[in-house]
Amino acid sequence: MREFTSEQLDDLAFGAAVLGTGGGGNPYVGTLLARQAIEEHGPITVVDPEEVPDDALVVPAAMMGAPTIMVEKLPAGNEIVVAFKALEEYLGRPITHTVSAEAGGLNSVTPFTLAAQLDLPVVDADLMGRAFPELQMCLPSLSGVSATPMAMADEKGNSVVISTISNRWTERIARSVTIDMGCSSMIALYAMTGAQLKQMSVPRTLLLAEDIGRVAHKTAAEHGDVVAAVQERIGGFRLFQGKIVDIARRTDAGFAKAEAKLEGTGESAGSTLVLEVQNEHLVARLDGEIAASVPDLIIMLDSESGEPITTEEMRYGFRVTVIAAPCDPRWRTPEGLELVGPRYFGYDIDYVPIEKRRAAKQRRAARSRGR
Amino acid sequence: MREFTSEQLDDLAFGAAVLGTGGGGNPYVGTLLARQAIEEHGPITVVDPEEVPDDALVVPAAMMGAPTIMVEKLPAGNEIVVAFKALEEYLGRPITHTVSAEAGGLNSVTPFTLAAQLDLPVVDADLMGRAFPELQMCLPSLSGVSATPMAMADEKGNSVVISTISNRWTERIARSVTIDMGCSSMIALYAMTGAQLKQMSVPRTLLLAEDIGRVAHKTAAEHGDVVAAVQERIGGFRLFQGKIVDIARRTDAGFAKAEAKLEGTGESAGSTLVLEVQNEHLVARLDGEIAASVPDLIIMLDSESGEPITTEEMRYGFRVTVIAAPCDPRWRTPEGLELVGPRYFGYDIDYVPIEKRRAAKQRRAARSRGR
Repeated sequence: MREFTSEQLDDLAFGAAVLGTGGGGNPYVGTLLARQAIEEHGPITVVDPEEVPDDALVVPAAMMGAPTIMVEKLPAGNEIVVAFKALEEYLGRPITHTVSAEAGGLNSVTPFTLAAQLDLPVVDADLMGRAFPELQMCLPSLSGVSATPMAMADEKGNSVVISTISNRWTERIARSVTIDMGCSSMIALYAMTGAQLKQMSVPRTLLLAEDIGRVAHKTAAEHGDVVAAVQERIGGFRLFQGKIVDIARRTDAGFAKAEAKLEGTGESAGSTLVLEVQNEHLVARLDGEIAASVPDLIIMLDSESGEPITTEEMRYGFRVTVIAAPCDPRWRTPEGLELVGPRYFGYDIDYVPIEKRRAAKQRRAARSRGR
Repeated sequence: MREFTSEQLDDLAFGAAVLGTGGGGNPYVGTLLARQAIEEHGPITVVDPEEVPDDALVVPAAMMGAPTIMVEKLPAGNEIVVAFKALEEYLGRPITHTVSAEAGGLNSVTPFTLAAQLDLPVVDADLMGRAFPELQMCLPSLSGVSATPMAMADEKGNSVVISTISNRWTERIARSVTIDMGCSSMIALYAMTGAQLKQMSVPRTLLLAEDIGRVAHKTAAEHGDVVAAVQERIGGFRLFQGKIVDIARRTDAGFAKAEAKLEGTGESAGSTLVLEVQNEHLVARLDGEIAASVPDLIIMLDSESGEPITTEEMRYGFRVTVIAAPCDPRWRTPEGLELVGPRYFGYDIDYVPIEKRRAAKQRRAARSRGR
């Protein structure tokens, strides 16, 4: 158990935005909301998953919607409490802990608002180990845990409790309601026991995010290479360095979709990288060949400052470095890939772990040098 | 208090379809479902609104969606019970009565399925005195009664409980969920006390519908003029006699919208009637002039048999007679017209009660004869 104060927020926001792979909400908005909650109600109590009693009732909380909308329509701060209370009433027993549904600039700290207002401990974990665009893409789905009953609320005062026959149905209905609510909503779902949480979450996401942020900020203070420091800390691979030269965006069925084109500079001069986005980065194509894909993490950093850039922040002319990192191993199982692999998102490609792609690339490079 | 048996169903279905003004669901589907419920569980107990205790908890039940879909996707029969039970749990006290939300071939008897399975009495009343396409178009809205908490369920097993800040928001969110559920859903909403129901409903809709059906069936057996008998029983006015020559249909935002064009025959020879439809008939234009509009009832009957024709049944070549009848006087108030008048539906016309339109037409005809 530890206390989380607003001094730690900047590190956390940086690292969570790295893990958010472009999505998971805007870290600036997340920091604002979390800081306000801590200032009003005092520090957050964060507990390790191993400290959670097996019979605890843990309810993850998150913001749902298109990130492009979230930065313009800020939550009022109370709607997540409305959703939480609606779910607690439905469940008929007190919720004892909350936790992040995903890692991301905003959604890592969404539970903080709740925890501060209701004086609940936050478990240091999340359900993805990164951010994904759809509700069913959580590790508990792999174990057959239902996302429902799920509660939703908007800043106007509307709320909905959903019970569905599958987590795909939860996503479908909740997405429509979110669109009605103005393309963003606050949600509470995947109610679990402490025992389930320990099995079906990625532990210590907050610690990891804070550590990524701490390393990055320290490196920046020492005028070091922040991009390299982040890459090393997450065990990632450098995919590309270049400039954003084109972005085609559309908000489609409540998602922010985009295709970003980057022209290489420096080590990548002469090459082109295309990133396909659905809230998060899904696929990276280097000169037409797949360089990385979901469920592995594809992360865009400012080449100069090393700051993570969310997909809604991408702009023409930005000079960026794209790195990729391995996802949680549970996503690499056949069941995991069925839920979050490239084919689910409509890409007719096989998933190859980023480590294997890199090893194969190095072998090809060695052969071509040997020729 | 009276018993309602399946012998009365044919009369009721006929009359309810007349009052449904083309919507309110298919009477054949309604009869099938109600007959099945009565055969399995015994006769329905119907009580007069005056017999309902003031502190009763009355919950209306209905099917929501595009009528064109409802006839192809039949309810499983149990989903309305799922919705009802979800609402009862949310309300935290036993529901004592159910009632029709609207008059219509299907929705007049939707509560019967529920009443038979849960052994609840059905109050002889409805919330519109006709059918309207949107949820907020119920008399309780005029008194500021909330449609929520509202429960919804589909035939697959998904259910949703909605709480909104206004009844327009209820309609908006419930419509999206209905579209997800396959364009039809079973709903329970406008939970009221017995005292509220007595003030905010149209009493004895079932008795009226049965009586319309009885008169029609008796006239048919005697080879009389069924259209004239129905028109007289509901205090209606004959608008047009003719043949359907064109129908343009679209399912738009979960509604069945249509425009039907009729060419006059007999007394209407040389004239053209255009009917604008959103689930129900909204506006009738005779040779370009408004002949009748919401909230008054516009009803299409088969010219030969006198059978009411729902908007989804309309087909090229049908020979029909169109009649119009006055709506409940509460819909004619400024507040009523704001909710269900022609301008709400996007028609830039003033509402004129059908009696006044007819009187004006007769004066014009008299003047033209006198010339």
